[in-house]
Amino acid sequence: MIRIGILGYGNLGRGVECAVKQNDDMELAAVFTRRDPQSVHILTEHVPVCPAAQAASYKDKIDVLIICGGSATDLPVQTPEYVKYFNVVDSFDTHAKIPQHFANVDKSAKASGNIGMISVGWDPGMFSLNRVYANAVLPEGKDYTFWGKGVSQGHSDAIRRIDGVADARQYTIPVPASLDAVRSGETPELSTRQKHTRECFVVAKEGADLAKIEAEIKEMPNYFADYDTTVHFISQEELDANHSGIPHGGFVIRSGRTGWEEEHKHIIEYSLKLDSNPEFTASVLAAYARAAYRMNAEGISGCKTVFDVAPAYLCRLSAEELRSQML
Amino acid sequence: MIRIGILGYGNLGRGVECAVKQNDDMELAAVFTRRDPQSVHILTEHVPVCPAAQAASYKDKIDVLIICGGSATDLPVQTPEYVKYFNVVDSFDTHAKIPQHFANVDKSAKASGNIGMISVGWDPGMFSLNRVYANAVLPEGKDYTFWGKGVSQGHSDAIRRIDGVADARQYTIPVPASLDAVRSGETPELSTRQKHTRECFVVAKEGADLAKIEAEIKEMPNYFADYDTTVHFISQEELDANHSGIPHGGFVIRSGRTGWEEEHKHIIEYSLKLDSNPEFTASVLAAYARAAYRMNAEGISGCKTVFDVAPAYLCRLSAEELRSQML
Repeated sequence: MIRIGILGYGNLGRGVECAVKQNDDMELAAVFTRRDPQSVHILTEHVPVCPAAQAASYKDKIDVLIICGGSATDLPVQTPEYVKYFNVVDSFDTHAKIPQHFANVDKSAKASGNIGMISVGWDPGMFSLNRVYANAVLPEGKDYTFWGKGVSQGHSDAIRRIDGVADARQYTIPVPASLDAVRSGETPELSTRQKHTRECFVVAKEGADLAKIEAEIKEMPNYFADYDTTVHFISQEELDANHSGIPHGGFVIRSGRTGWEEEHKHIIEYSLKLDSNPEFTASVLAAYARAAYRMNAEGISGCKTVFDVAPAYLCRLSAEELRSQML
Repeated sequence: MIRIGILGYGNLGRGVECAVKQNDDMELAAVFTRRDPQSVHILTEHVPVCPAAQAASYKDKIDVLIICGGSATDLPVQTPEYVKYFNVVDSFDTHAKIPQHFANVDKSAKASGNIGMISVGWDPGMFSLNRVYANAVLPEGKDYTFWGKGVSQGHSDAIRRIDGVADARQYTIPVPASLDAVRSGETPELSTRQKHTRECFVVAKEGADLAKIEAEIKEMPNYFADYDTTVHFISQEELDANHSGIPHGGFVIRSGRTGWEEEHKHIIEYSLKLDSNPEFTASVLAAYARAAYRMNAEGISGCKTVFDVAPAYLCRLSAEELRSQML
């Protein structure tokens, strides 16, 4: 059994707990939290909830610690720190800062002899993998990534910070005509506006100026100004009833050409349609926790990404079973 | 530069030649053929075409030999033989015989210190990879593979063997309603008939009994009897004009669930739409030739499949470039 620890028990941590339950070669050893442990109620019975500060004392009781913190301030500190004691997996997703995070985690992981698996999830993660495979197979071609339809937490938060807004939910939606054009083998240059639209469901505070809120959303730089944005004002009851889920998904498409004169077209498409973004991300984390455990057992250490992991490490099945059942 | 040899110059071998041209870290070193080399005209200038029997003498001039023979009788002999002299890659696709082929190639490859990369292409190959990734990430779920729309060489050949048939082309086509049901998150049990239909374009010899040919096709065990099959009689000119390509493709879908009570659904879908089946397969072979070369340079030997290859080995880009550009 692979003994899993979870650091941070929000949506992602809870998702990891559910994923561990589905993998019969894993068991949950402990959950660590920065909140008062008494206030954190987990789903699994007979598993301790401990203060994060005590995690290091579980050094010999945990094989892989899955770190469920945020990329902005938690993971840059937590991942290099906890890889001193455990193999760790994180979902660091600030694309521009991945090289620096990699360097920090690699240094710490090589010193401890553990594996620090970073940027695991679906983007970065499964989408990244599909970009690499498709580029390797079709060196002449063009990549497209579309996200959605799904909830963007960052955009929802940005709306909530507007004066007069009580609550909000924002959906990112791929533009169907652009998706169809790419799938048909065209290789258009697509502007930001041509790739995605944004749909906002907003609960206004009583007496708020709706026109002003709508204008503030639509003109917000980076978040909305470059997109066609639709704003719907609804009640809190409607938001809670119809928009409480956290679905997401998207498409990675490579449109390429082969042949002596590049006369043949090929489309490689990978897509996800997810009812629960955090639970799916957590399921990817669990699979890479298995890989970290197995690779470290072979003597491998240092910082790794999904690009460094042979697929056979991810699956419960043995190499023989994979070849006979999956190849 | 990775020096590539090609053994066998049919559609697949020619496709490998085109793929090598697209990869600027590869060069074609030689083509080996069992035909009279004088009768084989390749596309690349200044590259020798040699008798297959001389291949071993190129031991120090070739880094990876891509073996483009057939799975029925060529590869079971050629791959274990040539891995004595080179790293090799093949597209062995007789699923049931993969374990035996693996054992034979592994023994020979370990003795020589080379890598024998087997069953590379899209199915087995990219489709197999996607089955493994999706199963690792969603342990609770159901797999579906649909092939087509595309030309099945084996089924076309079977029709051509019927008395009175001059030529034929058979397309395998996924049943749209079944594909839609799976994509919607249903997990139906699908019979052979519910998954694919077969469409046949047949050129009959003069005076042949068309009704008899059609009945023979539709009742042919294994090939057609379990499918809804449509037969069109057309002229040789029409066949040549409209059905001379070798397109193919398909879909690998995993429909899974996560959550404490498995309350959330997820769909992972990978699809290919290929203008040229052999050229795409050849492009996958070229990427895995790069991996074989790099892994062998690190001291790795033995038989490997796509499951054993970390994605970073496949791409021209360095590990740093992959992390900053693709992750």
